[in-house]
Amino acid sequence: MICRWIDRSMTYDGSQLSAHWILSETGIVGDALVAFRGPCKVRRDEIADLADIDGPGIAADDMVHFVWEAFSDTGLMLGVHRQRLLSATALEVLRGMRPDLIARRDGDDLFVGDGKLSISIATVTPVSCLIHFAVNATHGGAPVRIAALSDLRVDPRAFAESLLAQMASEQASIAEARCKVRAKGEWAR
Amino acid sequence: MICRWIDRSMTYDGSQLSAHWILSETGIVGDALVAFRGPCKVRRDEIADLADIDGPGIAADDMVHFVWEAFSDTGLMLGVHRQRLLSATALEVLRGMRPDLIARRDGDDLFVGDGKLSISIATVTPVSCLIHFAVNATHGGAPVRIAALSDLRVDPRAFAESLLAQMASEQASIAEARCKVRAKGEWAR
Amino acid sequence: MICRWIDRSMTYDGSQLSAHWILSETGIVGDALVAFRGPCKVRRDEIADLADIDGPGIAADDMVHFVWEAFSDTGLMLGVHRQRLLSATALEVLRGMRPDLIARRDGDDLFVGDGKLSISIATVTPVSCLIHFAVNATHGGAPVRIAALSDLRVDPRAFAESLLAQMASEQASIAEARCKVRAKGEWAR
Amino acid sequence: MICRWIDRSMTYDGSQLSAHWILSETGIVGDALVAFRGPCKVRRDEIADLADIDGPGIAADDMVHFVWEAFSDTGLMLGVHRQRLLSATALEVLRGMRPDLIARRDGDDLFVGDGKLSISIATVTPVSCLIHFAVNATHGGAPVRIAALSDLRVDPRAFAESLLAQMASEQASIAEARCKVRAKGEWAR
Amino acid sequence: MICRWIDRSMTYDGSQLSAHWILSETGIVGDALVAFRGPCKVRRDEIADLADIDGPGIAADDMVHFVWEAFSDTGLMLGVHRQRLLSATALEVLRGMRPDLIARRDGDDLFVGDGKLSISIATVTPVSCLIHFAVNATHGGAPVRIAALSDLRVDPRAFAESLLAQMASEQASIAEARCKVRAKGEWAR
Amino acid sequence: MICRWIDRSMTYDGSQLSAHWILSETGIVGDALVAFRGPCKVRRDEIADLADIDGPGIAADDMVHFVWEAFSDTGLMLGVHRQRLLSATALEVLRGMRPDLIARRDGDDLFVGDGKLSISIATVTPVSCLIHFAVNATHGGAPVRIAALSDLRVDPRAFAESLLAQMASEQASIAEARCKVRAKGEWAR
Repeated sequence: MICRWIDRSMTYDGSQLSAHWILSETGIVGDALVAFRGPCKVRRDEIADLADIDGPGIAADDMVHFVWEAFSDTGLMLGVHRQRLLSATALEVLRGMRPDLIARRDGDDLFVGDGKLSISIATVTPVSCLIHFAVNATHGGAPVRIAALSDLRVDPRAFAESLLAQMASEQASIAEARCKVRAKGEWAR
Repeated sequence: MICRWIDRSMTYDGSQLSAHWILSETGIVGDALVAFRGPCKVRRDEIADLADIDGPGIAADDMVHFVWEAFSDTGLMLGVHRQRLLSATALEVLRGMRPDLIARRDGDDLFVGDGKLSISIATVTPVSCLIHFAVNATHGGAPVRIAALSDLRVDPRAFAESLLAQMASEQASIAEARCKVRAKGEWAR
Repeated sequence: MICRWIDRSMTYDGSQLSAHWILSETGIVGDALVAFRGPCKVRRDEIADLADIDGPGIAADDMVHFVWEAFSDTGLMLGVHRQRLLSATALEVLRGMRPDLIARRDGDDLFVGDGKLSISIATVTPVSCLIHFAVNATHGGAPVRIAALSDLRVDPRAFAESLLAQMASEQASIAEARCKVRAKGEWAR
Repeated sequence: MICRWIDRSMTYDGSQLSAHWILSETGIVGDALVAFRGPCKVRRDEIADLADIDGPGIAADDMVHFVWEAFSDTGLMLGVHRQRLLSATALEVLRGMRPDLIARRDGDDLFVGDGKLSISIATVTPVSCLIHFAVNATHGGAPVRIAALSDLRVDPRAFAESLLAQMASEQASIAEARCKVRAKGEWAR
Repeated sequence: MICRWIDRSMTYDGSQLSAHWILSETGIVGDALVAFRGPCKVRRDEIADLADIDGPGIAADDMVHFVWEAFSDTGLMLGVHRQRLLSATALEVLRGMRPDLIARRDGDDLFVGDGKLSISIATVTPVSCLIHFAVNATHGGAPVRIAALSDLRVDPRAFAESLLAQMASEQASIAEARCKVRAKGEWAR
Repeated sequence: MICRWIDRSMTYDGSQLSAHWILSETGIVGDALVAFRGPCKVRRDEIADLADIDGPGIAADDMVHFVWEAFSDTGLMLGVHRQRLLSATALEVLRGMRPDLIARRDGDDLFVGDGKLSISIATVTPVSCLIHFAVNATHGGAPVRIAALSDLRVDPRAFAESLLAQMASEQASIAEARCKVRAKGEWAR
């Protein structure tokens, strides 16, 4: 999996969560995870999570966005597990940067106190699995109570680079693990 | 997913990582995660991870063992992601019990300082996906430098019950998430 | 699988055979089979079976409709088998209510004499498998010769409740069966 | 799917439920359903259904056996659906031969009154899906209360030929149905 | 797989690479490979290969077109392998007709000298796998340097019929091979 | 896919066609294709192709062997397509080295005149897809009429290196192709 930081600021409006957006934006061919900074304003027709459709909207002025597209092993069940592992790893990276951080993961969401630090969705296209995960960089523009990296004095770019590196490393180790394990048979009774 | 603590102490020798062992041992039918306490002494012919075959052996006198068998969505790639998420969740549970804990996850392994706290393997059978994850309860019997729950003053049974509850909850939320998300199309260009 | 009768009468126009319609209509999350009573008037652009596109149209004034969406194991081959089993079970339920019934199943269709008692289609969405099955409650409005539950003096609601219960029970037993069977090897020669 | 009656009487001992047994026995290459008459005496080590291992044994003196091996679409979930549809079709065939028959299907089992008419199992091999289904031809040798085709005055060979023909026809229609159906999208809201 | 030559000349504009086009055009139900002769002028919105979107366009005045739709085993990875095997077989057929032919295959493209002899794409629909492969029959209308069957003095119809026959034969032998091979276990160490 | 020539001569006896043999022999982790030179003497219990079991045996004194193990996309249908593409590519490589070569591919077999130049099998393990392909280097030891690279004055090592390079390149291009293609919808009618 190729992981890359995109310098250019972009507004995430949901259309980025589409097949081949990473290819079009960056020229990367293959499984990839990219990150960039910018506002979030998801258009209602691009909302993928039906639980959010009648909600307060998905928006914030300043977030660090991650978009992950995988063309191999594209099932939605695996996609949601990838998403959860990404969220868990994000929390681990934050704790590596701020060892005294009190935060928690609830499914695909991270919370600091009662402030929601992140948003996320995992879905599929006919050719790939797609994940969006984003962490508030600073405050402003959100329809719910949020927490932000600025509260934690964590630099958004440093956090993103660290998470990208960690994900690249873990996906490589997962690919290796799959190739080194023996199948098992039936329990003898 | 049914999660259950097994009171009876058992030695984990690797044969438990076989299709239908949970069914035979507990009568549970279906996807399940069970935990029990006991020694670990994996027989060489039961070692699933080929990276361990020429290693120092897999053993410890007192561990909390988790065995997970899933009959739905049984691919090995998903299996390894389930395993990683289990490891990450174990660390989150430990931090919930000891907020000042300094520990880290490296793939499927947990470390406290330079002591290895856990072991794990994910594999497949012709009908299911199987995961073993175990955490040292106390010291003794291991061929490598380890850390143990006793170092952290964490009760093994309480830890296990908490992790079982957390995994049951997350698997339920994953199953729900899969049913609420819209597929996405191609990026318009 | 959650099975539910919907009291509200609705016209089935084909749009109900879409991903997440059950969720939107009932709030049920996950694999589900719902039933309701109402007219059938499938819009040409919603016809899924290409064999029907140039046919006489799909319509009837009063039917008992079943809509089934499955998010797990979503292949079309399995979908068509689910559909056939649903049709076969419908016939079994009818015979349980009218032991002297002379009727037959031909693929996904039920016939009483030369009257077509039912219509059905199985298809897929990017996230699920979808099945529509409907049985004529009373006569009227159909472009072909039909039979109806009224001919058999079978109450549509009672039939629907019975079929829903039977399907829930069989799907549960299928899920169990999958988790209790050993794989087999090669024939020794 | 090739369907064939095997004239030679054979004892079904469970070893026939193995990959490529049909190929070895008949020379048929590909998805096939074969039937033959003979005793049933399943060796304990060949029992596939773990629910039967501690049971009274699987035996009868005179049965009509069906063995089905499918190399395409080999998932166990589909396999169990194929099995259920085979059982349901067997009942339909019997009712076609004896319209006044009072019998019922409970999952993969057929009953006449409180007599068990049939046995069945569905499982997988690394290369295929396998199903055994057998109906008692005459009485004798069974460890439980059974019903038999002789009670119904149904000729075993005629029943087998009719069921083979029906299954061949339905599998052909299922294969066709898969190729004529349009996928559906998301429900518009 | 049914293979058929279509006598009627048609312009390939990319819309033929859609689910059920073969069914609509020919009435063939099931996996099929059809061929016809005609111009090629792919509309930009029908271009499937993103690598071609900003290219010189996909056009030629006179080609032999092959369209392949497979409803069984529809994964894209398999689809691309089918495509490559089709290209390789086309070259073998040409060499069978012109043993002294100097040509080469580069992925899915055939070249004679520096002239591009063919174009191709493999993709998926929600219900099938689709492949387009076309060979220049005569010169004219192409935006790049091409070679054509006329250069080789190969009759387009004869070539098409020969390739269709070869593909039908190989797909049959592939289907057979799948049903005659034993699975293997783990290497003993 | 990692491709590597193994200098050490080894006898291929069929046991090499087992999960993780490449890993054990070479230390390569992941999808790999390796080649080596040596005799061929397949033990009867290691024969994977049931069509060969009652045949004259699989043996030759001096062959160039290729063993391919793929852990991603492991279905047998894809495996057989990979095998056919490997055979086709081998012929292309030979023609690149001897442009005047008259040879033909028949499924997975290559022939020069009436001499069989190669043998091959594709199968699966519970964790991978496995392919063996071998070409006679010199004459001797075969139970059937063969052709050999020595007849063609082709150096076995040079041929192997060239085929390894070609396969690595094509698999890379296949992986790329999968990530650059848009899915297509339904044909408008």
